[in-house]
Amino acid sequence: MTSETASKDCLGWAARDPSGVLSPYSFNRRAVGSDDVSITITHCGVCYADVIWTRNKHGDSKYPLVPGHEIVGIVKEVGHNVSRFKVGDHVGVGTYVNSCRDCEYCNDGLEVHCARSVYTFNAIDADGRFRLVLILICVPSMCKYSIRQTMHVRMQILYKILTLLLKIWLNRYCYKIANDYPLALAAPLLCAGITVYTPMMRHKMNQPGKSVGVIGLGGLGHMAVKFGKAFGLNVTVLSTSTSKKEEALSLLGADKFVVSSDLEQMKVKNMLSFLTKTMTSLMRLSELVVYVQALGKSLDFIIDTASGDHPFDAYMSLLKVAGVYVLVGFPSEVKFSPASLNIGAKTVSGSVTGGTKDTQEMLEYCAAHKIYPQIETIPIENVNEALERLIKRDVKYRFVIDIQNSLK
Amino acid sequence: MTSETASKDCLGWAARDPSGVLSPYSFNRRAVGSDDVSITITHCGVCYADVIWTRNKHGDSKYPLVPGHEIVGIVKEVGHNVSRFKVGDHVGVGTYVNSCRDCEYCNDGLEVHCARSVYTFNAIDADGRFRLVLILICVPSMCKYSIRQTMHVRMQILYKILTLLLKIWLNRYCYKIANDYPLALAAPLLCAGITVYTPMMRHKMNQPGKSVGVIGLGGLGHMAVKFGKAFGLNVTVLSTSTSKKEEALSLLGADKFVVSSDLEQMKVKNMLSFLTKTMTSLMRLSELVVYVQALGKSLDFIIDTASGDHPFDAYMSLLKVAGVYVLVGFPSEVKFSPASLNIGAKTVSGSVTGGTKDTQEMLEYCAAHKIYPQIETIPIENVNEALERLIKRDVKYRFVIDIQNSLK
Repeated sequence: MTSETASKDCLGWAARDPSGVLSPYSFNRRAVGSDDVSITITHCGVCYADVIWTRNKHGDSKYPLVPGHEIVGIVKEVGHNVSRFKVGDHVGVGTYVNSCRDCEYCNDGLEVHCARSVYTFNAIDADGRFRLVLILICVPSMCKYSIRQTMHVRMQILYKILTLLLKIWLNRYCYKIANDYPLALAAPLLCAGITVYTPMMRHKMNQPGKSVGVIGLGGLGHMAVKFGKAFGLNVTVLSTSTSKKEEALSLLGADKFVVSSDLEQMKVKNMLSFLTKTMTSLMRLSELVVYVQALGKSLDFIIDTASGDHPFDAYMSLLKVAGVYVLVGFPSEVKFSPASLNIGAKTVSGSVTGGTKDTQEMLEYCAAHKIYPQIETIPIENVNEALERLIKRDVKYRFVIDIQNSLK
Repeated sequence: MTSETASKDCLGWAARDPSGVLSPYSFNRRAVGSDDVSITITHCGVCYADVIWTRNKHGDSKYPLVPGHEIVGIVKEVGHNVSRFKVGDHVGVGTYVNSCRDCEYCNDGLEVHCARSVYTFNAIDADGRFRLVLILICVPSMCKYSIRQTMHVRMQILYKILTLLLKIWLNRYCYKIANDYPLALAAPLLCAGITVYTPMMRHKMNQPGKSVGVIGLGGLGHMAVKFGKAFGLNVTVLSTSTSKKEEALSLLGADKFVVSSDLEQMKVKNMLSFLTKTMTSLMRLSELVVYVQALGKSLDFIIDTASGDHPFDAYMSLLKVAGVYVLVGFPSEVKFSPASLNIGAKTVSGSVTGGTKDTQEMLEYCAAHKIYPQIETIPIENVNEALERLIKRDVKYRFVIDIQNSLK
């Protein structure tokens, strides 16, 4: 089907070892196949997953490793079978680039749950069923912080007549971005955006008048606030950092802001003693109102985007009866009292990214409702500094690398 | 509204201190009010909650304490406002006997979630809103392991005209039991039955062809198996006790039986090494089949009735994508890896007992489908021994005290 070209036709920045330091790296991509699109990447968002795998935090990193999975760009070339995209289209690529396309999840646009889904980086694009065609390109897929991305959007499957299914499979892992949606701003939607949008839709959070608490105000959290407001929800931000209060309320449009470290310390059950203590300080009276409102089992939903360890019981106590707590972060463990779950019939549910159907829908929703991530654009030269700042949570609210103007 | 009679008109068995030992105890109940029914109790089920509160495990027990919240009997007398019940009717009383009747949950037949619900024992039947009428009967409600139960089914509310709402409120906390349903068998439905029925219905487990895993095969677990089979589910019992295998399959009708201690030891992630090891033993080949089936993310639902500490990750790995894990037990904590929740978008949800609407529905469902708990009937004299056996899980599957024939 394809073969590697002899010349190094791709430039990216790769980590070579668990130090995670990124530096320029030339490599080859396959030629554009009949079902591929070739993309000139303009921007790429920086996700904490980039820290995890460039530094081998999970022990499964394959070096050299070119990170990135919030990729946007402009179609440069399409294979002769590709009809959904044309040269010049604005497109995006998210966290995965392949799947079996034949299981119940793939058939339902939920490819993220396919047992054979292939991540966008640090992954081998092959499995038993596809090895006849994939053996030739069985290399880590590593072309994200790079100048050109060849997306494999449909493969020749030799053992099956696919004529009838072409429309379903075509361009599956590539998404259209509206021409008037700034590409730099579109990048974070491909991971941060879809990661909160998917569970918000699945748990029916798009009900005006309901309330949501957002834990953590980073890349994911700030998008949850924006979606929450767009859905007509009353949004409370629960953050460890008081420094984000002003922006949460004025810039992002949240309705309330609660310092979650205070919430944790008080352990909720000691509410009365806390209130007594608080009442002695008139300076904190306005905060008291916020706390009382927040404490009164006032939230229909919580979206927890925090990956640092944090107690769950205090947050769960803020949920109304039958409230839903969605975890999208990855702390070291989830631990709570069964009473926090059972009393009030509460639900804790997890999620990671989303299917192709939801992703395309989310991109269109953002364009229609003018929902834009807050980003800091950086040149590729600053990517290592950006990763360090990301670790310190020093970003408002997503780094986006200006590939087009800085990677030469 | 009512006043205590001078004579001791009620006989029960009470615990006097945290030893939890029950012995005969005479006390008064109020006279039958206009909205009460008086019940001649025939049977009462024994729940682990009786151990918890007679032995002051939660530190909030009020002695003397007459336990019991799976109460069935025959109506002896009704107040002049009561039209739903007549003398001779078979009725049941569950885990609560009052609530505010004016909140969103009470209005929806979900009184169990009312912030002012009053438990059937070890509770004070009073709150701010009802204190005008309730101050006179502000004593622990303690007449369960006893010969007569005066149920307060509707109170005079002085500040509101209730004429239009009488039908909704009337006889709220008392349930009809079909005349041909054996009273002794009905008792466990009032707690064990409704505790598993409620989340099974809430999470739409009544879909023939779906699969459920039941963790723990005690009073609650064996009812989950029975409901599961009635719903047309494929039922896998996950139990720590091999001794229950034969009964689970032949008596209760489960489709599969897995020894969960083995499952825990293998930690699932090491499935391959486990399979290799297992394959070396032909003796375990049949079990291997069961494991492989169980391990293949085969379960749509899990109902966890275990209150002993147990690992959650291994069980959660058995769920399909978007699978739902319902906890109704009370281990000391719930702890799992976020990956067990997030990967596959799984849900962990809690539940306790059920509302009046679900409870009546469940009783009718059991009568219509001939679903009967497995019980061991005991005389009241054996109740202390039964509590000891319950602690050792030595019961198949619910003790029911024959009040009518043994409490004289």
